[in-house]
Amino acid sequence: MLDNQSTTELSKLGEFGLIHHLTQNIEIKNPTSLKGVGDDAAVIDYGGKKVSVVSTDMLVEGVHFDLSYVPLKHLGYKAATVNFSDIFAMNAIPKQLLVSIAISSKFSLDAIEELYSGMLVACERYGVDLVGGDTTSSTSGLIISCTAIGEAEKEKLVYRDGAREKNLLCVTGDLGGAYMGLLMLEREKEVFKSDPKIQPDLEGNDYILERQLKPEARIDIIQMLAERGVQPTSMIDISDGLASELLHICTQSGVGAQLYEEKIPMDPMTFDRAREFSLDPTMCAMNGGEDYELLFTIAMKDFEKLQNNPDITFIGHITSKEAGVNLVTRSNTEHPITAQGWDALLGK
Amino acid sequence: MLDNQSTTELSKLGEFGLIHHLTQNIEIKNPTSLKGVGDDAAVIDYGGKKVSVVSTDMLVEGVHFDLSYVPLKHLGYKAATVNFSDIFAMNAIPKQLLVSIAISSKFSLDAIEELYSGMLVACERYGVDLVGGDTTSSTSGLIISCTAIGEAEKEKLVYRDGAREKNLLCVTGDLGGAYMGLLMLEREKEVFKSDPKIQPDLEGNDYILERQLKPEARIDIIQMLAERGVQPTSMIDISDGLASELLHICTQSGVGAQLYEEKIPMDPMTFDRAREFSLDPTMCAMNGGEDYELLFTIAMKDFEKLQNNPDITFIGHITSKEAGVNLVTRSNTEHPITAQGWDALLGK
Repeated sequence: MLDNQSTTELSKLGEFGLIHHLTQNIEIKNPTSLKGVGDDAAVIDYGGKKVSVVSTDMLVEGVHFDLSYVPLKHLGYKAATVNFSDIFAMNAIPKQLLVSIAISSKFSLDAIEELYSGMLVACERYGVDLVGGDTTSSTSGLIISCTAIGEAEKEKLVYRDGAREKNLLCVTGDLGGAYMGLLMLEREKEVFKSDPKIQPDLEGNDYILERQLKPEARIDIIQMLAERGVQPTSMIDISDGLASELLHICTQSGVGAQLYEEKIPMDPMTFDRAREFSLDPTMCAMNGGEDYELLFTIAMKDFEKLQNNPDITFIGHITSKEAGVNLVTRSNTEHPITAQGWDALLGK
Repeated sequence: MLDNQSTTELSKLGEFGLIHHLTQNIEIKNPTSLKGVGDDAAVIDYGGKKVSVVSTDMLVEGVHFDLSYVPLKHLGYKAATVNFSDIFAMNAIPKQLLVSIAISSKFSLDAIEELYSGMLVACERYGVDLVGGDTTSSTSGLIISCTAIGEAEKEKLVYRDGAREKNLLCVTGDLGGAYMGLLMLEREKEVFKSDPKIQPDLEGNDYILERQLKPEARIDIIQMLAERGVQPTSMIDISDGLASELLHICTQSGVGAQLYEEKIPMDPMTFDRAREFSLDPTMCAMNGGEDYELLFTIAMKDFEKLQNNPDITFIGHITSKEAGVNLVTRSNTEHPITAQGWDALLGK
């Protein structure tokens, strides 16, 4: 796979560019490998009634979490839950979890038990068995790698590439809260560092703090879709932000989309805190990430089955590829959507 | 899971103690979770003809590998292969691999391509599809987490708990070489550090260096066992050393064993280098680890089917639990086997 791009910097490629670069020449050879790299999870078909859906994620201390304000039990819960979210995003149900952790000597047995207990609470909550893993030492900090395995009937699976023109664009819950929770925690950490006598002032921010520290995955939506007989045409979970996820769906489906700013669901607390931080609330919802809500598309015929559900908001529709992926602002102007990520959001 | 052992140090428990401590209260609830924590891999049964076998491993820079003498392509090859080895140890065949890596900014795109190319060579060699993973940044060094998924017919699976009295104890290949390769590399690194003008003197050590840097997993043995109609009663792969693996089999099977020192297969180069390092060659084979050979037990009736195979050595037999797990030395004395690991081996 070596080519002449020896001077290309990783930072230029970005995470998705790197994954694409590394995996673009991979050929799937085993008949059981139904779906490889490029969706929320891989799909493996053993020829039985159900197929197996597998997803893996790695969390690194100092990159994905800061133990100065993240309780270990919450971290364990979140590490498991974000993996389950990937399985739900395939319209599948997680059943098994494998957990590998690398720990440095600064951690006590109590600390590791806290981490594990959080994972086990998440497993209990979502009906998942912890079936394996690896425990090793680290020279610096904590690393958690989780692999979730789920099951689904093959014809019920939902990929990222099935969105079609005139499909409706739906999102669950509300967006931007996890990111505002993170900004609150970071701000109080800085205050505490400058003067340890000042106690953190987090009162009244429970909702956004919980969105950041203990997110839930939308098993309720997957169950509801099944009950109402709705098969989404495409689906992805919102880990990197609405903009990035919508671009994944549009790129892989070969379509465009119109997304209406005024429709994007936000909790009033998220909106108010964004204003306090002098941030555009819409930008927080578009690029904040870590909401673990589901973004999906449905055929118009299914609209009535979902229209009265308070957990689902219709935020736009799918268009032709040529029309592009656009945000229609409150002032009714159109802006092409780009995946800006956190750096752009923070003006870095 | 919190208990009053708050002062227990992780180092006292050790890796296996920690895993046992953390997982002892886990109850498996889903009918598809056929086997959980405690073997080389978890087993998942979707009710089809084949079951799914899943294993995961984490490799941490500075703990499991040293990039000052490990080429990245070899590292990628080894990271994949050691996972396949876990699947073979279940008498299953690996079919899919998921790879998560965390990389710090010191790595170039070329470096990551080297790592990946090694993994893809291993996938090609063993007929495995790379189907997914995660790529993220790290604050320090390289972390690789691999998850291998294999398949087998349910009744062909071999666990660690099936060894029975009078079974024969077999091992593949030869032992201790990977550890001697590591000692050679560490020695030359120290020489180079003390005087960079001195070039590493590794000539004539190809075999043990390859055992350390580019180990193979025994797919040939799994295929041969199937061809000759031999179903081992228990099996495990040798990652931590013969002593540790034999104790796993005996503990989980509720049996004892007699292991004959004179039967332990060693390459002459391994033997000679151990002597040069003033180490007991048998101790290197017992506790060196990373050989990725298979240790298994068979019923006596199957002896003839394997006796002429040059890749298999009969090193002892299974006894009653009460008789204990013993090494019978060349001088015909018996010593109880304990898992000493590397610290004991190095006299730390």
